[in-house]
Amino acid sequence: MGKALVYIQSGGPTAVINTSLYGVIKEAKKHPDEISAIYGSLNGIEGLIDNKIIDLNKEKDETIELLQQTPGAALGTTRYKLPKDIKDPIYQKILCTVQKYNIGYIFVNGGNDSMDTCHKLSVLCKELKLDIKVMGIPKTIDNDLAVTDHCVGFPSAAKSVINNVKQICTDARCYKRGKVFIIEIMGRNAGWLAASVDLLPAGSRPDYMYLPENSFNMEQFLKDVKETYDRKGHCIVSISEGIHFERDTSAARVDAFNHVQLGGAGDALAKIVEDKLNLPTRSIELSLIQRADSILASKVDHDEAIACSKVAFESALKGETGKMVCIIRKSSNPYTVEYKLMDIAKIANVEKTIPFEMIGGKTGMTDAFKKYLRPLIQGEIDVKYKDGIIETATLEKHLL
Amino acid sequence: MGKALVYIQSGGPTAVINTSLYGVIKEAKKHPDEISAIYGSLNGIEGLIDNKIIDLNKEKDETIELLQQTPGAALGTTRYKLPKDIKDPIYQKILCTVQKYNIGYIFVNGGNDSMDTCHKLSVLCKELKLDIKVMGIPKTIDNDLAVTDHCVGFPSAAKSVINNVKQICTDARCYKRGKVFIIEIMGRNAGWLAASVDLLPAGSRPDYMYLPENSFNMEQFLKDVKETYDRKGHCIVSISEGIHFERDTSAARVDAFNHVQLGGAGDALAKIVEDKLNLPTRSIELSLIQRADSILASKVDHDEAIACSKVAFESALKGETGKMVCIIRKSSNPYTVEYKLMDIAKIANVEKTIPFEMIGGKTGMTDAFKKYLRPLIQGEIDVKYKDGIIETATLEKHLL
Repeated sequence: MGKALVYIQSGGPTAVINTSLYGVIKEAKKHPDEISAIYGSLNGIEGLIDNKIIDLNKEKDETIELLQQTPGAALGTTRYKLPKDIKDPIYQKILCTVQKYNIGYIFVNGGNDSMDTCHKLSVLCKELKLDIKVMGIPKTIDNDLAVTDHCVGFPSAAKSVINNVKQICTDARCYKRGKVFIIEIMGRNAGWLAASVDLLPAGSRPDYMYLPENSFNMEQFLKDVKETYDRKGHCIVSISEGIHFERDTSAARVDAFNHVQLGGAGDALAKIVEDKLNLPTRSIELSLIQRADSILASKVDHDEAIACSKVAFESALKGETGKMVCIIRKSSNPYTVEYKLMDIAKIANVEKTIPFEMIGGKTGMTDAFKKYLRPLIQGEIDVKYKDGIIETATLEKHLL
Repeated sequence: MGKALVYIQSGGPTAVINTSLYGVIKEAKKHPDEISAIYGSLNGIEGLIDNKIIDLNKEKDETIELLQQTPGAALGTTRYKLPKDIKDPIYQKILCTVQKYNIGYIFVNGGNDSMDTCHKLSVLCKELKLDIKVMGIPKTIDNDLAVTDHCVGFPSAAKSVINNVKQICTDARCYKRGKVFIIEIMGRNAGWLAASVDLLPAGSRPDYMYLPENSFNMEQFLKDVKETYDRKGHCIVSISEGIHFERDTSAARVDAFNHVQLGGAGDALAKIVEDKLNLPTRSIELSLIQRADSILASKVDHDEAIACSKVAFESALKGETGKMVCIIRKSSNPYTVEYKLMDIAKIANVEKTIPFEMIGGKTGMTDAFKKYLRPLIQGEIDVKYKDGIIETATLEKHLL
């Protein structure tokens, strides 16, 4: 007589977010004695609050397989933040659902904010002495979770950014008198993703790259752009959406986690270039595709997503709780990792930016960064297409 | 004692623009007796004007092979428009280069504007009774060339748009209360590319799609968006950059061919939605990637690019001139085509929009459109990656 498992997807999706889900389902199915049911919570923690739980065992095998190449959170996701006070009635609702369905295992797949949810749930269960194991599975394209070497989802996003920026650079450089291109890449405070284009070879990489971790001097920037354009007939600049320069921030909005919604940095910078230098300028925002590009998913990332899920599942079965699976790098060449559990309290709400020794100047990163990133984007997924279109999983979502 | 061949790339690049070049090089190498040299003109017709001609025979075999997965014009491109008057000194410069290098064959790979270049060159050669064959090879993601069933480059662009929009839709729909997404797709007056998302299945396609060929009623549009958002928690709209609605066009610029440079339609529409409906809105411009996505190139398109080049080459060798290779569809199921030559005068500067019978309403196209497009995006290219990054060709460009 086992207990039920419930899986939660939370925060921004990644190209392999559903690969992690696939990994847990696959493991859980091997343990019918311990796991009485495999459930999914719709729209993150909201499903547990509102009693919107689906039975994942009723999904077709083919659908479960296709999760491995399906972007977007198949269970739906949320940015809902749990209240601080454990006595808040919200927690009563969660406990009600948990007990109604005999849930013994909660897996939270998410980034920074989601690990906060995971932490609060594990504290709740411990304080109430409930026999419920709560485990975190790392996921964020931002790569800003503490302790873990990198986050599941980041390598695939980096691979999409690198390959698309290479193709864009190759296209953008084919006119004699071209444009100034500003390519905006995701990343609020940590420039991991924007920095990833550093793996591109000379000729097919941006001329300049700016990260939130870098200092940005507008005067010098405009001088550099003008000099490069005059010399080459084009200039390609990649920026992290979170770079800091003076502009009208009056329109900035704040989301539920008190983050300023950035975006538009590329447009703003392009306008400045156009106004000040009077050069033809085009802003390119890689936008949602960088976190939804299952076609360009990294094989390393895919395999690590499944491995993390396996470790999370097996550890929970052994009685672990309140932990997140971390990837610990043993060596970069050959690339080898091991998986360890870390206290979620040490991870929740802590943001990891790029360490100083990896940050180069405005034209590139250090060798330490290249050494770090190169192994992560290796290998391609054998994507299944039907009539030229990527096949994706659509869950039937049988509600309990 | 043969004559030299010169190849010209012109206008906006496509994902398979260099596959056409590869096709001609491959054929030309099989005919050493007739073809004394294989040259490339740098930056389109500008190379012939400025005597910037490279020897393509000096490029490595490996580089030539990689042209098949290299976006951007490998020879460089141009938007330069030849003067009307055949006595303009520009033509003297061209003739000077042509005679200096004993050029007997000129291949112009391009779209509407480039076929104008092709036409003028062939008229020039005929009037001066020069034994130079001028052939057009169709290329444009806009799919707006007359006579030909479709244009080389369009199927790959459509395939990139379809797959990326599918992935974006899958991501964009995973929040309970999401956003209104406006996806802007390339296409000035012809909405072929924007319409291509019609091949996507329900659930992973935009809720509404607007083309330049459609009428656009702002009031109805806002009503539809609000109704859909209220019902589903999100609304995805795809638009062609050339849709017609009232907005500030004071900033519109005009290029060398007197086309208004559009772009920004998505941003403008998103702003209207935000202002009028007060809903969270995000504009996504697929931008350069849709014409530079060799990774998502269509196998059908790739093979047709090579086939068109072969026909163009063989026809020129037989003495044809002033013609463009057209793809004539014999059947959609099974998909079969044949290649025919058409007078370039009938093609240059004529723009083909979507025929009436293919245009449906704001939520989709007719079955005639689906039948037309479906065969074109079939099959994938076996892309070569090195360390997780697409390999592309960089020509050494040995100048004569």
